[in-house]
Amino acid sequence: MEDDEAAGRRRRVRARMQRLYPLCRSITGDGVRATLDVLAQDLPEGVELRRHEVPTGTQVHDWVVNDEWNARAAWIADATGRRLVDLARHTLHLVGYSVPVRASMSFEELRPHLHTMPDRPDWIPYRTTYYERTWGFCLAHRDLAGLEEAARLGPLEVVVDTTVAPGSLTYGEVVLPGSEEGEILLWTHLCHPSLANDNLSGLSVATELVRELARRPLRLGVRLLLAPGTIGSVTWLARNAELLPQVRHGLVLTGLGGPGPLVYKRTRRGDRPVDRAAELVVGARDGQVRDYSPYGYDERQFNALGFDLPVGRVSRTPHGEYPEYHTSADDLDFVTDDQLAAAYDAVLEVVESLQADVTYRNLSPYGEPQLGRRGLYPTTGGKNATDAVMAMLWLLASSDGATSLVEVAALSGASVASLHAAAQDLERAGLLAREASPAPAHHY
Amino acid sequence: MEDDEAAGRRRRVRARMQRLYPLCRSITGDGVRATLDVLAQDLPEGVELRRHEVPTGTQVHDWVVNDEWNARAAWIADATGRRLVDLARHTLHLVGYSVPVRASMSFEELRPHLHTMPDRPDWIPYRTTYYERTWGFCLAHRDLAGLEEAARLGPLEVVVDTTVAPGSLTYGEVVLPGSEEGEILLWTHLCHPSLANDNLSGLSVATELVRELARRPLRLGVRLLLAPGTIGSVTWLARNAELLPQVRHGLVLTGLGGPGPLVYKRTRRGDRPVDRAAELVVGARDGQVRDYSPYGYDERQFNALGFDLPVGRVSRTPHGEYPEYHTSADDLDFVTDDQLAAAYDAVLEVVESLQADVTYRNLSPYGEPQLGRRGLYPTTGGKNATDAVMAMLWLLASSDGATSLVEVAALSGASVASLHAAAQDLERAGLLAREASPAPAHHY
Amino acid sequence: MEDDEAAGRRRRVRARMQRLYPLCRSITGDGVRATLDVLAQDLPEGVELRRHEVPTGTQVHDWVVNDEWNARAAWIADATGRRLVDLARHTLHLVGYSVPVRASMSFEELRPHLHTMPDRPDWIPYRTTYYERTWGFCLAHRDLAGLEEAARLGPLEVVVDTTVAPGSLTYGEVVLPGSEEGEILLWTHLCHPSLANDNLSGLSVATELVRELARRPLRLGVRLLLAPGTIGSVTWLARNAELLPQVRHGLVLTGLGGPGPLVYKRTRRGDRPVDRAAELVVGARDGQVRDYSPYGYDERQFNALGFDLPVGRVSRTPHGEYPEYHTSADDLDFVTDDQLAAAYDAVLEVVESLQADVTYRNLSPYGEPQLGRRGLYPTTGGKNATDAVMAMLWLLASSDGATSLVEVAALSGASVASLHAAAQDLERAGLLAREASPAPAHHY
Repeated sequence: MEDDEAAGRRRRVRARMQRLYPLCRSITGDGVRATLDVLAQDLPEGVELRRHEVPTGTQVHDWVVNDEWNARAAWIADATGRRLVDLARHTLHLVGYSVPVRASMSFEELRPHLHTMPDRPDWIPYRTTYYERTWGFCLAHRDLAGLEEAARLGPLEVVVDTTVAPGSLTYGEVVLPGSEEGEILLWTHLCHPSLANDNLSGLSVATELVRELARRPLRLGVRLLLAPGTIGSVTWLARNAELLPQVRHGLVLTGLGGPGPLVYKRTRRGDRPVDRAAELVVGARDGQVRDYSPYGYDERQFNALGFDLPVGRVSRTPHGEYPEYHTSADDLDFVTDDQLAAAYDAVLEVVESLQADVTYRNLSPYGEPQLGRRGLYPTTGGKNATDAVMAMLWLLASSDGATSLVEVAALSGASVASLHAAAQDLERAGLLAREASPAPAHHY
Repeated sequence: MEDDEAAGRRRRVRARMQRLYPLCRSITGDGVRATLDVLAQDLPEGVELRRHEVPTGTQVHDWVVNDEWNARAAWIADATGRRLVDLARHTLHLVGYSVPVRASMSFEELRPHLHTMPDRPDWIPYRTTYYERTWGFCLAHRDLAGLEEAARLGPLEVVVDTTVAPGSLTYGEVVLPGSEEGEILLWTHLCHPSLANDNLSGLSVATELVRELARRPLRLGVRLLLAPGTIGSVTWLARNAELLPQVRHGLVLTGLGGPGPLVYKRTRRGDRPVDRAAELVVGARDGQVRDYSPYGYDERQFNALGFDLPVGRVSRTPHGEYPEYHTSADDLDFVTDDQLAAAYDAVLEVVESLQADVTYRNLSPYGEPQLGRRGLYPTTGGKNATDAVMAMLWLLASSDGATSLVEVAALSGASVASLHAAAQDLERAGLLAREASPAPAHHY
Repeated sequence: MEDDEAAGRRRRVRARMQRLYPLCRSITGDGVRATLDVLAQDLPEGVELRRHEVPTGTQVHDWVVNDEWNARAAWIADATGRRLVDLARHTLHLVGYSVPVRASMSFEELRPHLHTMPDRPDWIPYRTTYYERTWGFCLAHRDLAGLEEAARLGPLEVVVDTTVAPGSLTYGEVVLPGSEEGEILLWTHLCHPSLANDNLSGLSVATELVRELARRPLRLGVRLLLAPGTIGSVTWLARNAELLPQVRHGLVLTGLGGPGPLVYKRTRRGDRPVDRAAELVVGARDGQVRDYSPYGYDERQFNALGFDLPVGRVSRTPHGEYPEYHTSADDLDFVTDDQLAAAYDAVLEVVESLQADVTYRNLSPYGEPQLGRRGLYPTTGGKNATDAVMAMLWLLASSDGATSLVEVAALSGASVASLHAAAQDLERAGLLAREASPAPAHHY
């Protein structure tokens, strides 16, 4: 049954990526809307994927929402009409946010608008021009000679049938309510076109997490955001100032299906509860933990000094460290079901740890309470303690009203799950009581 | 002379263990009293071993003092009267706190009351049943078949001639007064029967420490407690609330004669003066220093949140980490005189360090004072500093009125002894003055 | 041009050492004055080397300024008048502060006044007797037998033509003003006679640093002190109490031309800005960083509790760790131009780092500001960030008004130079503003 569930998850994660792969996405436009359509279909009944449309020109902190971009077609054809490069064949062929063009030109005129990777001649690179109004094509370096050859027949026909015009920026949001104040924010970017690891993996795994968490009672709410990178997070942050004090923990999810171990990138401060929880989970899986750096994905917006939100990042080998990054080689074969499934398990365990991360006070602090007469201790003496007993002893030894359950896990080496179970037993026995949750962190 | 002293110590430590080994001890009863008799005989004149008797039923924090247990005899005999298992042959044969039995029974009826170690067929395990009223025998696993065989002759005769009845819990206390407020607590448990390392080693070495310390002027008092594990420390803590602020440092002493290097287990906070002092001493002997864990011996009571006393633990390979632990193989051959003597030296040096651990203020802080004109510095320049000069320079550089002598030792690598000597010289020269001792730590 | 400058520096550093080497220096006297004459000649126009003369008998904290010592001649001659040991041949032959002698004596009478190094028979040791009024000669151990042999001809003639009399202690001071409050103190001792590494290297490199820094606009002033060890720093500290709060950072410079990597010795507290800056510079050159110890050079006076000044030390293999230390083998061949030049570069970079070490506040802290529209970010997306962009991102991520530029360098791995340049760009773009400098540290 557990195996059936896991197999079903694997199938759904893969199927969603397959459906998302061909869509032509960017930071705005109908590709984003179509992506949200796909994800919404996989949410369980009663769980809504809310869409937000933020008009072009809206000021969001230091940024302004861009014109909306839509691409219907784009190609380079030779004098015979043969299309040598065509958006219809791969979404990476067109530089994102290319402005419309319809012209005949020589290879020499066209050349400055062509992007290739000479050292990876079979791969198409990924390029964008969000904030400069120009256009371009990306293609495999080995196809460049053919293009030059074809131009000998006569001028090349260049068509970029796009619009860059006032419209809106689209993002999606799913909220699972919790029984207490405070939320866990999960963030995935949805602005990249046919790139599987970056970030169809994040979108598909996050959708699966929501499916699972929606079946459970939650202490803290969970908010999943599906939005374009940088401008998307800045926009959400600008429009939700009143919500920010509710964000107790956050994770950016990206690059979960490629090669390499799990990599957790710490929050800027590096000592937040999400850091401790993720370090334990990723450490137990022989993953890597890295310090914050202001380069990367949207964690750099959440952690900016003015927001100071405790948002870490879970990935596998990060951006820029694998050659397939931002190329057509980041395709559906590049991500494996095993890597995706293991990433899902790890992120779920981090979320579970944060849900369990409350603070207790020992109500019987004058020596160890007599667990035996409460049925919590083996009655025959002389043997070593069990894991369950050790979890209880650690909670009693550490629950000073200021040390949370995940901190006790870090101190003790006991698992969050065993401590959570032990805390229930001790609470029932009247030996532990929950402290009120701390007030939200002060903001800048 | 020093060698003679050391040889005398070795002989006394061994002889005490030999006298204590055959006694049938538990957490209460006449075995405890007989043990205190043996130890009292070895204290120097003028040093009293006070005994305390705490009546059954006394509430001590979360615990209640148990009925007193005394065992006169216990055996299993075959139909011919041959005693196959007999308390008179080894104190471990009877489960501690066994209730009285006098019955004939088949092997099958008896079997649930028999404890053996199948993977160590020659050893008798150690088992107790303090808080559940039942009975049992422990025996070598290889003797089990003989018992079953013997039962073919007819029912086995089972005799447990014990009493479990209102009485009292007994513990001993030795106090060596100091010239200042504050005490060093030494704790050894005395509840285990014929187990040499755990804890005749602690009892015998602690007695030797008191013999030595009683000959010296002491700054801080030293209080040695000889009491049963867990219930003994909880009882002492409950009855001595007014004394607790006087406990500046403490050590649990146990398992000092077995194999392995010295192991110091830190206090719960891990940064107390006793931690620094013991880390230096144990580190200098290539021992191990470990963080606190709430499992172990009575340090878990002293360090409980409600008491928060700075009590560490000195042992060799700790409980549960050597196969002989809590078996008949922890016998007098298992502990060696060399290991016992080296442990004695180490614990004594920790106590000496704590006695010397006062805080000074540099009275001439504006640059290095001219040690030469005070006769404290070599007069011919150009050579390197001696250890004695370095100890003076470190004290002058660090004595800001908040950094104690043992902290200076940790900073500098200079020995506590050399710093103590240098401090005397500098104090005489008017360059250092002692600060008042800090107030006792705040309690929960 | 840069190479020409570097070559010129090398020539000047070497030439100054050659001129300084033969002078007979001690903690007072005409050798000190002649040394300052040499150094003053190499300072650029408009930069004054101020000399201070502090009379014998002046109380300076715990010390008293000594009598002034001057040595005109000193020798040991045989009965034929042949001079076997002669100050005129090597300044180390005469024990510093030797009192006058004019006597004939046997070898046996002379012997207690002779210092040699039996384990280094070719080297003359360096000895002084500042605070005990005696006299002595130092010589190569292999020459001792010849002296004994010569004494067979008749008594040896011993002449020490010195004066030890009221006079003054001399030190030099160069001040380069800065545009803001606060100074960087550079300290070199000038009391050692013909010892090249200890400390003609420091004197010559420091002079070169002043030449270079005098050509630049400085934020913090730079104060170079050229003074005798111990008594010189105590004297300066006693006479300049009002200046001490201005000393924001300091470095003792010594032993810069001998073998081995750069060694930075931390301030007593170990976490001062000069420590961070020097750790980065020395670390980037595979040098060593060591904790403070109260033995060494004048850092021990500056760091004394009553002053608590943040003064570190830059050297190569430190005093006492190379066999040539305080012997005639520490000659001009022992120091190499390459080692001197690399040390000059490192110290200059530390000073530059401290000059750049201001604290900024991010004026656009709500997410990452849009660097692209300010011309500070590449316009084509999809590629990795450049070093210049990373420096900007780190400054924006870390400039909370409390984290200084060198701290950002330590956090980020970006160089101080790249951060300094990025800060200028961001300040011009209105994204960063300098915070007021912190008040001087509190003093004892």
